[in-house]
Amino acid sequence: MTNDAQTVGELGEARVLAAILARLGPSRAVIGPGDDAAVLEAGRGRIVATVDTLVHGPDFRLAWSSGYDLGWKAAAVNLADVAAMGAHPTALLVALALPDDTPSRLVTALADGLREACDALAPGCAVEGGDLTVSPTLTVAVTALGVLDDDRPPVLRSGARPGDVLALAGDAGRAAQGLRLLFERFRDDEGAPVPVDQTRLTPDESDAIAAQLRPVPPIRLGPAAAAAGATAMMDVSDGLALDASRLADASGVTADLASETLGADAATALSGGEDHALLATFGARAVLPDGFRRIGTVRERAAVAVLVDGARYDGQTGWDPYTGWDAALG
Amino acid sequence: MTNDAQTVGELGEARVLAAILARLGPSRAVIGPGDDAAVLEAGRGRIVATVDTLVHGPDFRLAWSSGYDLGWKAAAVNLADVAAMGAHPTALLVALALPDDTPSRLVTALADGLREACDALAPGCAVEGGDLTVSPTLTVAVTALGVLDDDRPPVLRSGARPGDVLALAGDAGRAAQGLRLLFERFRDDEGAPVPVDQTRLTPDESDAIAAQLRPVPPIRLGPAAAAAGATAMMDVSDGLALDASRLADASGVTADLASETLGADAATALSGGEDHALLATFGARAVLPDGFRRIGTVRERAAVAVLVDGARYDGQTGWDPYTGWDAALG
Repeated sequence: MTNDAQTVGELGEARVLAAILARLGPSRAVIGPGDDAAVLEAGRGRIVATVDTLVHGPDFRLAWSSGYDLGWKAAAVNLADVAAMGAHPTALLVALALPDDTPSRLVTALADGLREACDALAPGCAVEGGDLTVSPTLTVAVTALGVLDDDRPPVLRSGARPGDVLALAGDAGRAAQGLRLLFERFRDDEGAPVPVDQTRLTPDESDAIAAQLRPVPPIRLGPAAAAAGATAMMDVSDGLALDASRLADASGVTADLASETLGADAATALSGGEDHALLATFGARAVLPDGFRRIGTVRERAAVAVLVDGARYDGQTGWDPYTGWDAALG
Repeated sequence: MTNDAQTVGELGEARVLAAILARLGPSRAVIGPGDDAAVLEAGRGRIVATVDTLVHGPDFRLAWSSGYDLGWKAAAVNLADVAAMGAHPTALLVALALPDDTPSRLVTALADGLREACDALAPGCAVEGGDLTVSPTLTVAVTALGVLDDDRPPVLRSGARPGDVLALAGDAGRAAQGLRLLFERFRDDEGAPVPVDQTRLTPDESDAIAAQLRPVPPIRLGPAAAAAGATAMMDVSDGLALDASRLADASGVTADLASETLGADAATALSGGEDHALLATFGARAVLPDGFRRIGTVRERAAVAVLVDGARYDGQTGWDPYTGWDAALG
């Protein structure tokens, strides 16, 4: 038995690993955790693979994120990258680097968050492998693997054509609103993060913070978009304006966003990252899958990659991890 | 152009990424780096997937390891896990977490090391995706993917049977000898690592340090062992005695190692990790593939998982990351 107030340094690798594996639920793989590598079914012979990392400080603060939140978000952001190719997520590999004073209850909660995000967002997907190491900085690197429907090609960023409809599934700006609330309301006089006091939040504010800490990207809509003939698709992780410019650059087109489709706070919708919505383009006559809404039009390549209401957009566009964060931990 | 004395914080994400991609060489994937995820051929429908992480401090010190060494080792240790399943490595995904004061030349050298390790150890395998983030702690998490030869099952840890030959391909104890030399000879009066002065090393010592910093695991011998009918196989990363006990436990047998096969320093061969040799078992009549040597025999399960020369082994067995390292950086 592990006492969940013990640290991972006190427990040692074998018992920390056993505590994690006990939380992960059944493997769906040919060979799941426990050997040198996992062995996974790959459908008709092509797989989709991506990796994304959450680092204590730049990507989360433990005063704000629980272990459960962290596991959930680490799964969700990677599932979204698989979905954005039009694929079904099938497996996660989780590389956990933990300070030796990490409470084991944080690690087991993290495993719970990983499992429940998979079950909620991508049923059938599970953690099938990973790695556990010690580090001064709590780091969660998740690899997500997925399969494409039979004989269907992946949906790339580069397939948008002039005249296509620009469509979005999921939130735009909500996670950024939540992050702003965390920075404005839940820091001490020195600027260090302090725990979230839900009694100081309206239901809408609480919902925005949840969008930041436990995003719910529309994973099943990735394969649905592929089936509906999406010409291009990507995960919106760094803000709609910046990510739309990436899709437009890859496709050699210009994305013209309609601000009236972006809600009351269009500026935050355009600049705010971490919602992990799906941005997709469809031919002008395509029927958008339920869950997608039209947010603009693809045009011939203009002087810039992104227009808003037909004009150049001069607002803040997005997030660079090497210039965009302060070093305060919590 | 990037000036390689600039830091990643000065350059920003886009230029660091461009500098890395310029070093990686051609993609062999259906879709390589640049979209939300890579798309990879998966042979006859099963893939092998593993992840392993190197963390500054516990796993390497920059006074001893160059960026090139680090990239090479991060690739090699993961390729070995794929090979240990009997599979051919096909792709790496690399999650790099970098302090913002990291010199960009370290990052480009790391990319060179990744590429050259793939080319030397697993031709055809390349970096096909990754993630770049900022962290207080330099961390390299590599996911390796591979494919099995047509219709051949993976070689697991659990297939060893009494009477099988226990065989090893690659070094045992060499990387540990190198690590001991680094700790004994290349630290200052406070114990902090200092750069390796090759003029203070014999050729044999220099070779041992190279085995620690740039291991050369016998990747091609993993599929060769599978083709020769290996009944079980694993990568030896934590020491021969400890890893043999894991294979024996998984198989419900006891591994009896013959000390006279382990060289002049059998104790280091038994306890020393990080060689990433391949430990495999074969039926008594099998012809061992060139590169494997017999190091013992598989016996009916005894009271303990590992014997040495038929007797219980009381020496040091291996390495636990949460109890085995000191916190000095360098």
